[in-house]
Amino acid sequence: MYELGVVHRTITRASHTDVEALAPFGVSTVHEAMGRTGLMRPRLRPVYPGARMCGPAVTVLLQPGDNWMLHVAAEQVRPGDVLVAACTTDNEDGFFGELLATSMRARGCAGLVIDGGCRDVAELEAMDFPVFSRAVSAKGTVKATLGSVNVPVVCAGAPVRPGDVVLADADGVVVVPAGRAAEVAGAAARREAAEEEKRKRFAAGELGLDLYGMREPLRAAGLRYTD
Amino acid sequence: MYELGVVHRTITRASHTDVEALAPFGVSTVHEAMGRTGLMRPRLRPVYPGARMCGPAVTVLLQPGDNWMLHVAAEQVRPGDVLVAACTTDNEDGFFGELLATSMRARGCAGLVIDGGCRDVAELEAMDFPVFSRAVSAKGTVKATLGSVNVPVVCAGAPVRPGDVVLADADGVVVVPAGRAAEVAGAAARREAAEEEKRKRFAAGELGLDLYGMREPLRAAGLRYTD
Amino acid sequence: MYELGVVHRTITRASHTDVEALAPFGVSTVHEAMGRTGLMRPRLRPVYPGARMCGPAVTVLLQPGDNWMLHVAAEQVRPGDVLVAACTTDNEDGFFGELLATSMRARGCAGLVIDGGCRDVAELEAMDFPVFSRAVSAKGTVKATLGSVNVPVVCAGAPVRPGDVVLADADGVVVVPAGRAAEVAGAAARREAAEEEKRKRFAAGELGLDLYGMREPLRAAGLRYTD
Amino acid sequence: MYELGVVHRTITRASHTDVEALAPFGVSTVHEAMGRTGLMRPRLRPVYPGARMCGPAVTVLLQPGDNWMLHVAAEQVRPGDVLVAACTTDNEDGFFGELLATSMRARGCAGLVIDGGCRDVAELEAMDFPVFSRAVSAKGTVKATLGSVNVPVVCAGAPVRPGDVVLADADGVVVVPAGRAAEVAGAAARREAAEEEKRKRFAAGELGLDLYGMREPLRAAGLRYTD
Amino acid sequence: MYELGVVHRTITRASHTDVEALAPFGVSTVHEAMGRTGLMRPRLRPVYPGARMCGPAVTVLLQPGDNWMLHVAAEQVRPGDVLVAACTTDNEDGFFGELLATSMRARGCAGLVIDGGCRDVAELEAMDFPVFSRAVSAKGTVKATLGSVNVPVVCAGAPVRPGDVVLADADGVVVVPAGRAAEVAGAAARREAAEEEKRKRFAAGELGLDLYGMREPLRAAGLRYTD
Amino acid sequence: MYELGVVHRTITRASHTDVEALAPFGVSTVHEAMGRTGLMRPRLRPVYPGARMCGPAVTVLLQPGDNWMLHVAAEQVRPGDVLVAACTTDNEDGFFGELLATSMRARGCAGLVIDGGCRDVAELEAMDFPVFSRAVSAKGTVKATLGSVNVPVVCAGAPVRPGDVVLADADGVVVVPAGRAAEVAGAAARREAAEEEKRKRFAAGELGLDLYGMREPLRAAGLRYTD
Repeated sequence: MYELGVVHRTITRASHTDVEALAPFGVSTVHEAMGRTGLMRPRLRPVYPGARMCGPAVTVLLQPGDNWMLHVAAEQVRPGDVLVAACTTDNEDGFFGELLATSMRARGCAGLVIDGGCRDVAELEAMDFPVFSRAVSAKGTVKATLGSVNVPVVCAGAPVRPGDVVLADADGVVVVPAGRAAEVAGAAARREAAEEEKRKRFAAGELGLDLYGMREPLRAAGLRYTD
Repeated sequence: MYELGVVHRTITRASHTDVEALAPFGVSTVHEAMGRTGLMRPRLRPVYPGARMCGPAVTVLLQPGDNWMLHVAAEQVRPGDVLVAACTTDNEDGFFGELLATSMRARGCAGLVIDGGCRDVAELEAMDFPVFSRAVSAKGTVKATLGSVNVPVVCAGAPVRPGDVVLADADGVVVVPAGRAAEVAGAAARREAAEEEKRKRFAAGELGLDLYGMREPLRAAGLRYTD
Repeated sequence: MYELGVVHRTITRASHTDVEALAPFGVSTVHEAMGRTGLMRPRLRPVYPGARMCGPAVTVLLQPGDNWMLHVAAEQVRPGDVLVAACTTDNEDGFFGELLATSMRARGCAGLVIDGGCRDVAELEAMDFPVFSRAVSAKGTVKATLGSVNVPVVCAGAPVRPGDVVLADADGVVVVPAGRAAEVAGAAARREAAEEEKRKRFAAGELGLDLYGMREPLRAAGLRYTD
Repeated sequence: MYELGVVHRTITRASHTDVEALAPFGVSTVHEAMGRTGLMRPRLRPVYPGARMCGPAVTVLLQPGDNWMLHVAAEQVRPGDVLVAACTTDNEDGFFGELLATSMRARGCAGLVIDGGCRDVAELEAMDFPVFSRAVSAKGTVKATLGSVNVPVVCAGAPVRPGDVVLADADGVVVVPAGRAAEVAGAAARREAAEEEKRKRFAAGELGLDLYGMREPLRAAGLRYTD
Repeated sequence: MYELGVVHRTITRASHTDVEALAPFGVSTVHEAMGRTGLMRPRLRPVYPGARMCGPAVTVLLQPGDNWMLHVAAEQVRPGDVLVAACTTDNEDGFFGELLATSMRARGCAGLVIDGGCRDVAELEAMDFPVFSRAVSAKGTVKATLGSVNVPVVCAGAPVRPGDVVLADADGVVVVPAGRAAEVAGAAARREAAEEEKRKRFAAGELGLDLYGMREPLRAAGLRYTD
Repeated sequence: MYELGVVHRTITRASHTDVEALAPFGVSTVHEAMGRTGLMRPRLRPVYPGARMCGPAVTVLLQPGDNWMLHVAAEQVRPGDVLVAACTTDNEDGFFGELLATSMRARGCAGLVIDGGCRDVAELEAMDFPVFSRAVSAKGTVKATLGSVNVPVVCAGAPVRPGDVVLADADGVVVVPAGRAAEVAGAAARREAAEEEKRKRFAAGELGLDLYGMREPLRAAGLRYTD
């Protein structure tokens, strides 16, 4: 499935309208709105508090200990894109730091999701360049072996196609297929509206048992109450 | 030992006086005051800085990927209670989020300790609803399989009985059996007083070697000094 | 290589001049300046944001669940020293807390790097006593079994000799052999100067592909571009 | 919950009859017969293929890197007992080896379950002394700090009381409370009989969908079939 | 990308000829023949020594702690198929055991690859029903929540489409897209022939330095030899 | 400490006599005879049952995903040497397989210890070429970046100098500094003789409590017995 040694220059990005429609929602809401799919594994965490991003994916497939393809990817980034970097194996080296962030920002890149390590995290916070990574590591990388840019990848367990919308916040990272972005944004909005109603009822002391009508199903499942 | 499919409505909570007596102390102090017992494994961490709680436990036994029992537990919560959620297996899904926190707060719940995942962490921080979890994950859960409420559980390696006092701060989570709460609070107070004295001597430059009389035991154990 | 039961009172510390020369640099820069060597594994993390230290190492070899040797080490600490604590096995107990920090600060200790657990982290942050550890754990330790002080150790995968310079910041921990400190500080300065130049070019939109002359090597390696 | 520094000489062992009744069953069957409870976490594995044991538990609470209490426990072992060793923290040191196994065998001990490390595994296999451990490690331990014998412990996530029946085979380790042993053996026997019937039907090509009557519940849950 | 609640009855399996062509090769050879792609993460291991399988994939997407979809999948299995089971989250419960293996064998299933736990491993070895799993666990599962059958999945980090060829042996598990099976089998055959030649030269004492012409590239890369 | 890009051709190997003296002992015995030092972390395991080796170390420092230096090291191997391969970061790729084993065997290499992955494990078992690794992985590696040969390394937490004696068996891997080999072999022999005596007494039913004179120290430490 993976292709090595190739850069796809032309990708079909989710429309700006769709990205804008998804951007206000939280990762948990969007994941639910997609029918509980699309999440990356929770090992990816923001490198500083408050990091957040939403944009179409430019994908990168890295080799362990080698960040060559991030430089190749920079040229493919358009304003608003999110870089999504997978690796051919488990590796926590520091593939990305402040210099690359400076370059990415100059290209208009909205942030980085990487199933690997990241460094210069104090500088990244000062720049407010959001990164979600599996580790913080100062370990340097080489530029010696080809990976790919803009091929379908699996990043932290989630399949990502170039152009898919990637949304990241304090709860993690979720991927919305480009073709479903509008539908998912709509479902997220309906979900949020429904949650607002529930929030009020919960705040007023109503129980989920009643609000969701759970008492009968629980009884049918055999739940026993004792004193 | 575990029972599945049962809710115990009547539990014997540690007294309010005992909870109040324990609340000012740190987790490390209380753990020491109990003879170095009662700690949960350090994989449980606060989901935001400064989270802290102390209260009698309402226990929940969850099934993987299923948060049904948290709704059942909500009805059993009284003001000041801490919810303690164990799971029948290792699972990092997002069992708990902002809506449940709203419900729990309306019941007077003091916070949640969960050997599983938690989501909506930005919202939880904004609400200042303290949660100690093993992971942050947006992964949604179902409501399909019975666990139990207010049965003895093992949470992150520590046995917890309903009504035991649970104390959590930046150092972790400790469990004090309800019947020992007063005694432990007393021991914690004595320990803190003794530490205050030691703190002064350490700050004045005295060495632990002298303060604790370690030189002779070290010599007897065979410690050699060389230049 | 390890010796147990011995304290070396005389060590050759990196000179104050060399420590001062290294202190302003970041861990990632120094690691690169050493030819990508000297890093501890990224499992060591600061116990509070902003923790940072630089100084010659006083080394400690601990036994699991036992912090006796930290008290022995305190006597060997001179102002500016960094304590580096390894353990004979993997262990996350809370070897170090506020009382020991008070003692270490009274000795002028610059901070602690420990391949084990640490507790009282709120108090350590209030004191601004920097600690880099593999875990936060309230678990208490005993004082029963000999380790060593000022022997060569392996801490989080990195060999450390007493007197080596240890530098720690948000990116991790790096060790500079005492005899190489001046040379490495020089290389770090040159690297930083070169990075400043690159930063400007990246910020102006130049690509790494051009700045580093990568286009021809990528072509030679077989990279294909498609539309 | 844990008590440190105590040895309970008198425990109530499950009866020989009950142990014999449980011994022929597999761990998976017994776990199911108990309503899916009682399992230790799957990190415990046999140190050689074919290891298997069943007997009442003599429990031990160890300190990290310290096997003193195993010697204390030896005196409490009666023929047929299974030693169950928990630790106050996560530790993989080699607490147990061939000499202790020789002593345990002389006491009639049926085997060891330990949430820690084990060594001399080639010799243990040659002796056919079954051990289930979380690691194989040659790391030596000291005899310096008190734990306890025959107190309730949590071993690999499962609560164990002295005298409970412990059953271990290639699938893992399960604990049956002494008071439930006869009932569980009966349920296991019924389950095995029912499985024999199912096995025949499965072998004949019948599907679980039909055998368990799942087609209607799946349809009701919304499962869609497409071509 | 994932769909929940759907069963695709019609899939395009790799041809029997292609499966037969790939079956004789080892996983490492096939992975190399695909340009170093297609591997599952090494956490998947055979549950008994000598387990091995090759066949087109019937894919299953499981929910944590729930094996309902394995029963649904059984009906879709044709002789020679390999069942590939992914899960919506990390979970090590015992989803599969001897009864399901009996059913699968009756359907002609060649084996199971599961990014979850497996039980009854002694019985599976006795039946010689090959399973590659991430854990051995007796933990029982429920049948309550829908997943899917024959949708594209990510299993242990590798994307798998229904009908792709899955090959598993002592080195791990590799996935060959159905459309590339013939090409990859040819490349594997060429690779093996080339390796046979190299094996003879290595056995005769020739060095890889000479056989692969590495001396000049190493010199160019700056390798220094010292005495 | 690490040097990159260098091969030391001249190393001082432990004498053949010393290697022969250590070879008969087990890893646990030798580790104890060295004062409980010298062990690698227990993550290193034999890739097949019964693997065992003893010889002077030729050390290799690898880069992640790159086995170039193993070919460079082959030329430095003399009959009886053990190859010890560390990596600059955590990496589980398959650095070593059957072809390299054929080459190493032709050079007289006694086996490999690698803090990384290994593949072709069925073939290695058939050849009886012993390997101790942290993972089994078919993942291929490149030949692109320099490491070093015969520099001091840290392998799985243990420092190793070229020429040190490395002993590996079912219990793990231990390193004996070349200069201490004779002394350690003597201590191991004395330890084994002492163990033979203890084994007899244990087998005759004597307790460790009496054999080691532990009753009084336990009483002094405060151990309480209750009925």
